[in-house]
Amino acid sequence: MHERLASILGSLLLDGRLPIHARLPSERSLAEQLRVSRATVANTYENLRGEGLLVSRPGAGNWTTLPARRNRGAAPLAPGIRSEPGVLDLAIAVPPPALEVVTAAFGWAVANLGPELAEDQRLNGHGYHPAGIPQLREAIAVRYTERGAPTTPDQIMVTTGAQGAVHLLARQLVTSGDLVMVERPSYPNAIDALRQANARLVSVSVSDGSWDIDQMTGVLAQANPVLAYVIIDFHNPTGAVLPAGDREALVREATRRSTLLLVDETHVELNLDGAPMPPPLAAFDRRDRVISIGSLSKVFWGGLRVGWIRATPELVRRLALERRSVDLAGSVVDQMAATYMLTRLGELLPGRLDVLAHRRDALLAALEKHLPSWSPTRPAGGLSVWARLDRPMSTALADAAERHAVRLVPGPRFGLDGTLERFLRLPFALRAEDLERAVERLAAAERTILTDAALRRSA
Amino acid sequence: MHERLASILGSLLLDGRLPIHARLPSERSLAEQLRVSRATVANTYENLRGEGLLVSRPGAGNWTTLPARRNRGAAPLAPGIRSEPGVLDLAIAVPPPALEVVTAAFGWAVANLGPELAEDQRLNGHGYHPAGIPQLREAIAVRYTERGAPTTPDQIMVTTGAQGAVHLLARQLVTSGDLVMVERPSYPNAIDALRQANARLVSVSVSDGSWDIDQMTGVLAQANPVLAYVIIDFHNPTGAVLPAGDREALVREATRRSTLLLVDETHVELNLDGAPMPPPLAAFDRRDRVISIGSLSKVFWGGLRVGWIRATPELVRRLALERRSVDLAGSVVDQMAATYMLTRLGELLPGRLDVLAHRRDALLAALEKHLPSWSPTRPAGGLSVWARLDRPMSTALADAAERHAVRLVPGPRFGLDGTLERFLRLPFALRAEDLERAVERLAAAERTILTDAALRRSA
Repeated sequence: MHERLASILGSLLLDGRLPIHARLPSERSLAEQLRVSRATVANTYENLRGEGLLVSRPGAGNWTTLPARRNRGAAPLAPGIRSEPGVLDLAIAVPPPALEVVTAAFGWAVANLGPELAEDQRLNGHGYHPAGIPQLREAIAVRYTERGAPTTPDQIMVTTGAQGAVHLLARQLVTSGDLVMVERPSYPNAIDALRQANARLVSVSVSDGSWDIDQMTGVLAQANPVLAYVIIDFHNPTGAVLPAGDREALVREATRRSTLLLVDETHVELNLDGAPMPPPLAAFDRRDRVISIGSLSKVFWGGLRVGWIRATPELVRRLALERRSVDLAGSVVDQMAATYMLTRLGELLPGRLDVLAHRRDALLAALEKHLPSWSPTRPAGGLSVWARLDRPMSTALADAAERHAVRLVPGPRFGLDGTLERFLRLPFALRAEDLERAVERLAAAERTILTDAALRRSA
Repeated sequence: MHERLASILGSLLLDGRLPIHARLPSERSLAEQLRVSRATVANTYENLRGEGLLVSRPGAGNWTTLPARRNRGAAPLAPGIRSEPGVLDLAIAVPPPALEVVTAAFGWAVANLGPELAEDQRLNGHGYHPAGIPQLREAIAVRYTERGAPTTPDQIMVTTGAQGAVHLLARQLVTSGDLVMVERPSYPNAIDALRQANARLVSVSVSDGSWDIDQMTGVLAQANPVLAYVIIDFHNPTGAVLPAGDREALVREATRRSTLLLVDETHVELNLDGAPMPPPLAAFDRRDRVISIGSLSKVFWGGLRVGWIRATPELVRRLALERRSVDLAGSVVDQMAATYMLTRLGELLPGRLDVLAHRRDALLAALEKHLPSWSPTRPAGGLSVWARLDRPMSTALADAAERHAVRLVPGPRFGLDGTLERFLRLPFALRAEDLERAVERLAAAERTILTDAALRRSA
């Protein structure tokens, strides 16, 4: 009995559903609530202490905690400097390169470079465009307008990928010690950029494919963060989409509390099933509370380093100045290639979505076959599946997978505090046959963990 | 008499040769030293107070200071978001685009993109190369080795321009409050990046085309900064080159004091007169105290956003990780174009240097003709002339020039503390005819300032 109870409490904690440093009831009080003997609760707490999940101070109380080795917050979510032959990389969620689109786009860019290189005071022959080249700013503004958020080019700033956008905005908008709301799970590199601006972070949970809008607006009302970073269009990593009504409620509360909403839309064009999407968050914004960021790196090729920010013309001007000490400006040729892609999106996207949908289905089929006890999401868009494991073993699995030539990022890296041990992000960017091979290796890695655990128990 | 004395002291201060917040001698003591009457000194100090250059507290002493309006430290050194037709831009020092080289390099890049886009685990099909694409790291290492600093590719990290390099290094190497040595004048955007890492800055002077090596080593020995940022190959903005013997002395002292030397070599290939150059600073380094940064943006085209860092393999690995929260990686196509340029440098550079040398000479001839009382440097390389003006009026001149459709960055922007009012950086990147036109407008702007001043005096 006490083992089962300890296991339930431990799971709640490691999944992030029970917060860390939360005070648990006293033994007597919990015994009463659960109608079990006090000895059962005492043994439960003893078990939790043994696993490093609980600290108790006699007379003071019991607090949840995490064992030191689970807290791998610093694990890199970055591709290796060199890729290793034979290693299947599930650590990064980037699309496979769209060979034909990329070649056509860059070919067009080079063929049309003439005016950009003209040494003419009326043009920008020097090649520095802190806010982006005019054609691309125009194309991005048109795309927002099409999606339902009327936009002018002076509201657009082009950045070095979406990561460059988050980095610039974190520097500009966050003062040391400011409170920032993020989702749990969320995109680790964005979290890192906010942390490096010395933000204090508070998280709201995205679980079972949805947000708790009351929890979100409650945190805005009570904690009153200066900024909230959200990914509501094919959320990374879960794939969830925030419904229109909740979008409206979120903007309303943020407007009331003067919180800026930073919405990361890097996945929005990856609508694999073609289901109708709610309007973009910016469409609900009347008071300049919404700042949107986007990218083409997640659509056609990671090597294209083009992202952007949609904000007020005033903020765009400030960011363009701020950028002079960061990277001055972005690649002009990449921006021209992005202009080609964006102005032909309707024609170029369907082939892309077919490839990705096929790979998603291949990954889900492989999981069903080789790891049937896991519960993966079936995302309608984006680049990854978020799988619920049998038990809290994400970090152990990532370690074991490395020995089976699969690179993984353990679930806790997507949270703030070492929880989410029961989850794993599985990108479906690799070829179908490589995805099946990777899942086979994962199943083998899981068996070694379970065997090790069984051996330890019997020892 | 007292007016001349006040003018001399005022000039020393505004040129940066007399520090701010320096204590001046008492009236009596200065009168004795200069063998003038005490009344003359009293009137001199009164004049300086009137110009906002001196604060005095009776019984306590006299300190140099600066009037508030001269301190325009925040003026942007960045191209405008939009270029304005008819405005001649002398605010940025970027090369004119090398039309043929750029077109050929990007054409080659696109034609050879195939392997980079191959969806193959052995290659990096995802397009993210945090440390740079292997071919370019190799080409950069070869170039350092040719210049006299043997280098392996794992010592090279490719960045988003040289500015991206300074930004990453400032974040990685500077802890809040650390002391960093810079030159005066120096490159403002680098200074900004160091300031934003909360460095405390101390400066050593580069004047009349040379460094005072004893002052430099003295600051290293006494103030013991963690880092020194220097531009010793065609210094920006003066064009000066540090001789080999001084390089050796600088590295020796930095090694003794455990100071890291960050040497900005972005101008090193712009050797306009083809004079033999001293070995690179890294060639004198035995203890990993030298970190070098370079770029191709200042050679062929500003729109090519490729810079790099040469450091230890260990630091390169750390920076590649650090980068994940900044911009993840750089443009692959830009890096391929840079590889083309760098591996054919011997063939592509001469035509480039001819163009720039011609423009430098055109600028100097125009200054000689229209502003003969200014004293410009005649730099053997780089992209700009550093001109000494008749009087401390750089900020006023930049304001007046704007009304004559010329963009300038006033001299104080290249220092730390609002001094350098007697100097002006003049890039020679524009076409010869535009340079002459710009100098004509500057002469007109100067006349309006002098007329205004004369009118004020007679009023």
